[in-house]
Amino acid sequence: MAQEQHISFETALAWTAQRVEAELDRLLPARAGDRLRDAMRYASLGQGKRLRPFLVMQSAALFGQPEAQALRVAAALECVHCYSLVHDDLPAMDNDDLRRGQPTTHRKFDEATAILAGDGLLTFAFEIVADVATHDDPAIRSALVLELARASGEAGMVGGQMKDIEAEAGGFASYAAIAAMQGMKTGALFRFACEAGAIMAGADRAPLRQYAEHVGLAFQIADDILDVESDAATLGKATGKDRDRGKATFVDFLGLAGAKAEAARLTDAAVTALAPYGERAQLLRETARFMITRKK
Amino acid sequence: MAQEQHISFETALAWTAQRVEAELDRLLPARAGDRLRDAMRYASLGQGKRLRPFLVMQSAALFGQPEAQALRVAAALECVHCYSLVHDDLPAMDNDDLRRGQPTTHRKFDEATAILAGDGLLTFAFEIVADVATHDDPAIRSALVLELARASGEAGMVGGQMKDIEAEAGGFASYAAIAAMQGMKTGALFRFACEAGAIMAGADRAPLRQYAEHVGLAFQIADDILDVESDAATLGKATGKDRDRGKATFVDFLGLAGAKAEAARLTDAAVTALAPYGERAQLLRETARFMITRKK
Repeated sequence: MAQEQHISFETALAWTAQRVEAELDRLLPARAGDRLRDAMRYASLGQGKRLRPFLVMQSAALFGQPEAQALRVAAALECVHCYSLVHDDLPAMDNDDLRRGQPTTHRKFDEATAILAGDGLLTFAFEIVADVATHDDPAIRSALVLELARASGEAGMVGGQMKDIEAEAGGFASYAAIAAMQGMKTGALFRFACEAGAIMAGADRAPLRQYAEHVGLAFQIADDILDVESDAATLGKATGKDRDRGKATFVDFLGLAGAKAEAARLTDAAVTALAPYGERAQLLRETARFMITRKK
Repeated sequence: MAQEQHISFETALAWTAQRVEAELDRLLPARAGDRLRDAMRYASLGQGKRLRPFLVMQSAALFGQPEAQALRVAAALECVHCYSLVHDDLPAMDNDDLRRGQPTTHRKFDEATAILAGDGLLTFAFEIVADVATHDDPAIRSALVLELARASGEAGMVGGQMKDIEAEAGGFASYAAIAAMQGMKTGALFRFACEAGAIMAGADRAPLRQYAEHVGLAFQIADDILDVESDAATLGKATGKDRDRGKATFVDFLGLAGAKAEAARLTDAAVTALAPYGERAQLLRETARFMITRKK
């Protein structure tokens, strides 16, 4: 039974990834000779796990929201996520040549094009969400824009990335300091993803917010564990970069065993937070477990 | 009388600039030790003419929209404009060291901080507009977000910047080709600025759209004229850069006298488009004339 559910989660994840891919392809169709569009497609279409979109779709399903509308929210969020990868990979930032086993956008095109493709994807996310096709109620569309902007901006992802860069100089002082940074850099978009369905339904977001905070942190701790235990071929990107830069990771503060225990504890807490939704949240429970069992 | 009106326009422009400055300062208050906030303030507060915000305020006044709400739309638009300057100035783009006589953001801070400050300002613009304080009607807020995103993104400013960069290789083939690029790069934000009041009021935007298209192009032609006739000390930025890069400008296709004549013709057309608004549009008429009489 556990095995059957595991398969069902993987299938659901793969199925959602395919649908998000198709939605992005539909929203950003190929246009011959359009370099910016090419770069935006290169940056957003491809091999991602589409974890955030999957969370959006599961959250929306909890509240019986129409799939076509949820898919737009999922695609918008993925545009924000993908833009952030493009900008984070730039030479002035993390200077990465490889992303998901492929050349990063500035390597495939050039830096200027990558900057603009990122800007274009971020802007497009808000265009998608504000469009009437995303929700019939304009108050909900406005709420989605507001929450997506807060999650993506200075108080969320962009602010977290700044703190992460600043830490390269001084390092993080504690587990709490890294957790705070990751709560902004990675956690904020996870929160939006998990809450999206409740926002769309005008429902209480508190349980999903709790779930998201635990899942987001578990995801990031698992990332640091993978960075220690995995290799570039599996991850599709360079490993050990944080350590090479002398930047502290969760593993440094907790140890490898401690990090695994903390990730497991957070996963349990995430599952507990889903209690109000009963059986309907089964896939979200499995998502929480996937965060720490995934191999890349 | 004409002299008196001229003074009144300059006064109105300066007064709006002060209020937009105060609004941005209020929306992005200084925070000790916050490098990202410092960079976002550095990039958005300062000596700009605040032409786009002025157009927003005048457009809103035409339709009797509350000033406090219009000021938020104006501030959001200025955040988009300022982010675009920060990213355009980056080494991978125009590689400018000077902006309004001051070091560009990546020179004052560093490239990574400048990229993130730009991302943060763009994101913040949508947060401002989607907030209930910007308009009581969520349908209007959604419409503002949608139009601002369209004006700023791939079909507007970002797409125009990409076309401008691509032209450095091949050059522009014609006046029409430059005008099309500038219609996206500069014109789209001007259109949003001029239409903002009509969007806020749910009114017909057609006359303001016509006005905006003429004014936006006149502004850009005037820029090319200033680039030929002025010097760095007056402009606060390097002159002749387009020519140095072998990139064709409006002046190349029209000649200096022809460019001046075309700018004047566009200004007249802009003024004509304002006919439906009668005397109430007096400051917008003077704005059109200012586009081609300004010295920087």
